[in-house]
Amino acid sequence: MYLEKINIPSDLKQLTIPQLEMLSGELRQYIIDTLANHPGHLASSLGTVELSIALHYVFNTPDDKLVWDVGHQAYAHKILTGRRDRFATIRTYGGLSGFPRRDESEYDAFGTGHSSTSISAVLGMAVASQLQGLTDRQHIAVIGDGSMTGGEAFEALNNASISKTNMLVVLNDNGISIDKAVGGLSKYLVKITASHRYNKLKEYVWDRLGGNKMSDKQRRRHIGLIQHITFMAKYAMLGAPNLFEALGFRYFGPIDGHNIEELVSTLEKLKDLKGPKLLHVITTKGKGMRKAEQNPVVYHAPGKFDAETGAQLTDSNKSLPPRYQDVFGETIVELASQNSRIVGITPAMPTGCSLNIMMRAMPHRAFDVGIAEQHSVTFAAGLAAQGMLPFCNLYSSFMQRAYDQILHDVALQKLPVVFCLDRAGLVGDDGATHHGVFDMACLRCVPNLTICAPMDEHELRCMMYTAQLPNQGPVVIRYPRGRGVKVDWRCPFSALTVGKGRVLTEGDDVALVTIGHVGNSARQAAQILAERGVSVAHYDMRYLKPLDTDLLRQIANKGFRRIVTVEDGVKQGGFGSAVLEYMETINNTTPITILGIPDYFVAHGTIAQLQRDCGYDVDHIVAAAVE
Amino acid sequence: MYLEKINIPSDLKQLTIPQLEMLSGELRQYIIDTLANHPGHLASSLGTVELSIALHYVFNTPDDKLVWDVGHQAYAHKILTGRRDRFATIRTYGGLSGFPRRDESEYDAFGTGHSSTSISAVLGMAVASQLQGLTDRQHIAVIGDGSMTGGEAFEALNNASISKTNMLVVLNDNGISIDKAVGGLSKYLVKITASHRYNKLKEYVWDRLGGNKMSDKQRRRHIGLIQHITFMAKYAMLGAPNLFEALGFRYFGPIDGHNIEELVSTLEKLKDLKGPKLLHVITTKGKGMRKAEQNPVVYHAPGKFDAETGAQLTDSNKSLPPRYQDVFGETIVELASQNSRIVGITPAMPTGCSLNIMMRAMPHRAFDVGIAEQHSVTFAAGLAAQGMLPFCNLYSSFMQRAYDQILHDVALQKLPVVFCLDRAGLVGDDGATHHGVFDMACLRCVPNLTICAPMDEHELRCMMYTAQLPNQGPVVIRYPRGRGVKVDWRCPFSALTVGKGRVLTEGDDVALVTIGHVGNSARQAAQILAERGVSVAHYDMRYLKPLDTDLLRQIANKGFRRIVTVEDGVKQGGFGSAVLEYMETINNTTPITILGIPDYFVAHGTIAQLQRDCGYDVDHIVAAAVE
Repeated sequence: MYLEKINIPSDLKQLTIPQLEMLSGELRQYIIDTLANHPGHLASSLGTVELSIALHYVFNTPDDKLVWDVGHQAYAHKILTGRRDRFATIRTYGGLSGFPRRDESEYDAFGTGHSSTSISAVLGMAVASQLQGLTDRQHIAVIGDGSMTGGEAFEALNNASISKTNMLVVLNDNGISIDKAVGGLSKYLVKITASHRYNKLKEYVWDRLGGNKMSDKQRRRHIGLIQHITFMAKYAMLGAPNLFEALGFRYFGPIDGHNIEELVSTLEKLKDLKGPKLLHVITTKGKGMRKAEQNPVVYHAPGKFDAETGAQLTDSNKSLPPRYQDVFGETIVELASQNSRIVGITPAMPTGCSLNIMMRAMPHRAFDVGIAEQHSVTFAAGLAAQGMLPFCNLYSSFMQRAYDQILHDVALQKLPVVFCLDRAGLVGDDGATHHGVFDMACLRCVPNLTICAPMDEHELRCMMYTAQLPNQGPVVIRYPRGRGVKVDWRCPFSALTVGKGRVLTEGDDVALVTIGHVGNSARQAAQILAERGVSVAHYDMRYLKPLDTDLLRQIANKGFRRIVTVEDGVKQGGFGSAVLEYMETINNTTPITILGIPDYFVAHGTIAQLQRDCGYDVDHIVAAAVE
Repeated sequence: MYLEKINIPSDLKQLTIPQLEMLSGELRQYIIDTLANHPGHLASSLGTVELSIALHYVFNTPDDKLVWDVGHQAYAHKILTGRRDRFATIRTYGGLSGFPRRDESEYDAFGTGHSSTSISAVLGMAVASQLQGLTDRQHIAVIGDGSMTGGEAFEALNNASISKTNMLVVLNDNGISIDKAVGGLSKYLVKITASHRYNKLKEYVWDRLGGNKMSDKQRRRHIGLIQHITFMAKYAMLGAPNLFEALGFRYFGPIDGHNIEELVSTLEKLKDLKGPKLLHVITTKGKGMRKAEQNPVVYHAPGKFDAETGAQLTDSNKSLPPRYQDVFGETIVELASQNSRIVGITPAMPTGCSLNIMMRAMPHRAFDVGIAEQHSVTFAAGLAAQGMLPFCNLYSSFMQRAYDQILHDVALQKLPVVFCLDRAGLVGDDGATHHGVFDMACLRCVPNLTICAPMDEHELRCMMYTAQLPNQGPVVIRYPRGRGVKVDWRCPFSALTVGKGRVLTEGDDVALVTIGHVGNSARQAAQILAERGVSVAHYDMRYLKPLDTDLLRQIANKGFRRIVTVEDGVKQGGFGSAVLEYMETINNTTPITILGIPDYFVAHGTIAQLQRDCGYDVDHIVAAAVE
């Protein structure tokens, strides 16, 4: 057993290559055994076991800086860097984060979670080292082929290529982002990977020049020359031109990302090469677990499974309400079959957001545009400008990437794009980078937008239906991750009145004013309060924008002892703040308490735990009402 | 005179190529003569005169869709599309917009202003046409080499290349964005442009195959074959691989963008070629006006100038206060010379934001990263993670592009990056796309940020000084475009107390509570009110976050008749909203009026005109105070 001896990465350096290979088997099994009972991102991390070992073996972390793009593939890295014993706590309240975090370990050089940031961050670090005279320090970004489609990665490549800094981009190419990778880049990577002729030639040149027999010193002296020769040959031989070299990077590979010996020897060679360079590594997502290799989309984050067979352990959930995601997916197909203007767009999340239902049902009208939130929104705007009615599905936290496009390309032009913001509100175990809690605060100030949030499945369906009626302009519909509250969810469509809320219960003492799914917590609170003899009125505002000012005026005039607003989002500038702004203009005198997320980044845990911590679970709503 | 006969683009089709050439001379002169007295974006538009004529000559606008990236180069397009007579109103209140706008002309297929959106928009339009069965419709994006460095352009290329849609990207390559273009892409474009051998070969093949003698029908039949042959030859001959072909685009060019005959014949050929294609056109920014060609950075938007000589007509402004921009530029150099951790970053605006002062003074510590706001922020985060203290200067409205990076890469990790948000507030003649009015509303909800705004040059200097002191975390400093109020601006540095406002004048009747430069309007209003016998207290809060709650509590307890907040930003969720949120928690009963930008997109005009329209100029402040 080697794994138990690896407490910090430098322990790896005592091992031989065959021992590292055995370690990789142990490490892979450790990940499988742990995640079988403690759900997490399985398939990506299985694909980077050898790469993680090789990187920590060759480089001198934490002094050398290693950044994992997105970071869900960094489990092996976490286990090798002093977090083996705590690994089973991953993604649980108070436990390890599912992503790298600077405050969790000095080996996590940069926190990640959203895609395509690693090259920018590593370039920053490399420039810092240069300014600080730390010329031997290495800086490594590991980025997947999916993340490479994000525009920020391109911006960083473009900028890095003119720097003389010491940085290495490891392109972890498995042909998969979460779903299958799409786009010209993806096709291109397949093409260059297939160019065996070139690799053979490179090996030949290397051998002829005695590369494998050279001393370290000789190798260092000759590597520039060798590269030059092989580069020249490459242009003549490759069927495809090299994208990365066009941008000024030196390109190496592709090599087998599961061959530790090849990884180690290649990384050793690259270590001494100055300037920006890219190593193309081919890996298999889910490597070493048959079911995960066969179906990496399902095994991206499979939940609990049988460690022996890989079979997923799912409860039969027939009697539970559906996930909002599936309601979205089924409903857009229904609407699109009635309205030929409707198309569906997702930036690389077809399975996560359930647009895959439409992609199967009407493939020519549903588009996965790659990890490219900015493009997805302007693309939608272009479609809308020519008479189509796009539903653009974005995870709320990833929408932050497209804030300017929503504002500048859609809202300013009043184009009829429907934004379905999935995973709005606290998302639970994915933690701080993934909570969709800023959307209401940052979008409320954008003119021309209609913004609403459903309290249940029926509202989601009717909001989607209403959004596609004529002359609606841009509409934002936000809904949370996970299940709603109605088992019998497939209601007939009916149009909502835009900007109108509804009264759920009448009462005299206290008004609960809510928006979206969190209204269900308020409903429970209202029942508890009623049992305690407090007469509670509950208003589901439905629309953040336009606000139902008639209803708010009625609430102000009712003489409640207190008004409590509840939202699954940040309090600063959010829904409660909007209520407050209007109430001030009508000289309301009823005290208002705003419940929602306080002014700090919320970590990971169950949604129930986190809502409690943030002070807007049922108990806190009850407490605020009787304050 | 041909120009006066061109009222719509189809009028062009009556002209011969020599006549089009004469027209281009007239059109160029018309732009020069008009802009001499009516300032606008001169040099970019001079560079696209022939291209605009050729595009409208060959294509069938407005049925064919033409999108100008950024859009400041679209003046010739505006003049050719029915707006010649109103051209002198450009960028003035009620006049033509300086950018394309869908609501201004049916020939403006998509509104632009921010960079790198055109390919996404055109892809959306092309997909719409495909779904609608409009197979003959053409879709053209014209994008500069500077804009091509923006990540969204890459996202769009990646996505477009797998589509079978009919779209043409015209790469308008002049080697300049606003300042000189930077990065690997820029170097690359120079390299392929220099590859004359390849072009010669292509012409040769074309001739040998009888290309110039072919009928249209023959040409259509043969063009695929010819392209195939020339592509094969290109790989063998070019010193550089082709980036765009790597991504799956068919690449044509480079050709001379000032040769109408070549432009027309090439565009005609490309018209019938299905699928995504890119035409590389070389132009000269400022073409046809010697001074502008020689100094395209200065003549990007030169203000008034002499139409004969090109000499700029500038008032001697020695006695006026400096521009905030120059205070920033001079001050960062002073600070950086005292603090070796400081570096400066701009995404392609070194002249506009005055970081060029630092780039001259300490070139190794000031970075122009290209049009790449997202990257600029994560790059700064990477620098900060390794002990540096980056000042990242972003125009407020372009910051919207990096919202997620500020949140996810900087604030979440509490990294010490100082964001200097230039052009915050209404910017005047650039209009709706460029007003920096959303920053306070969208950033206020981001945990860990310190957000402040100077009322004058001394405050800006002291805020910059304070931001670089130890343990400050991420800081945002927002300031407007243009001049401050202090001629004698170079004050000694002194540390401000973070989160503390200041009392400017004491008073009893009304409290004016302001943040930033707009406090100067409030100061004037206070004087007017004092003359009318109203006793006004004026508080400059300085910090939006953390708010000075001690000061607000005092204000609440003073028993003012009214509190009026004033901000140069949107009211929804902004500064006034923050004041309101706090005041509600302490049961304040003084009525509060919030002045700022209402819930609509503000068009172009002078800042004074627009502030009046929005209701927060001096008169409106006076009116609100006596309400």
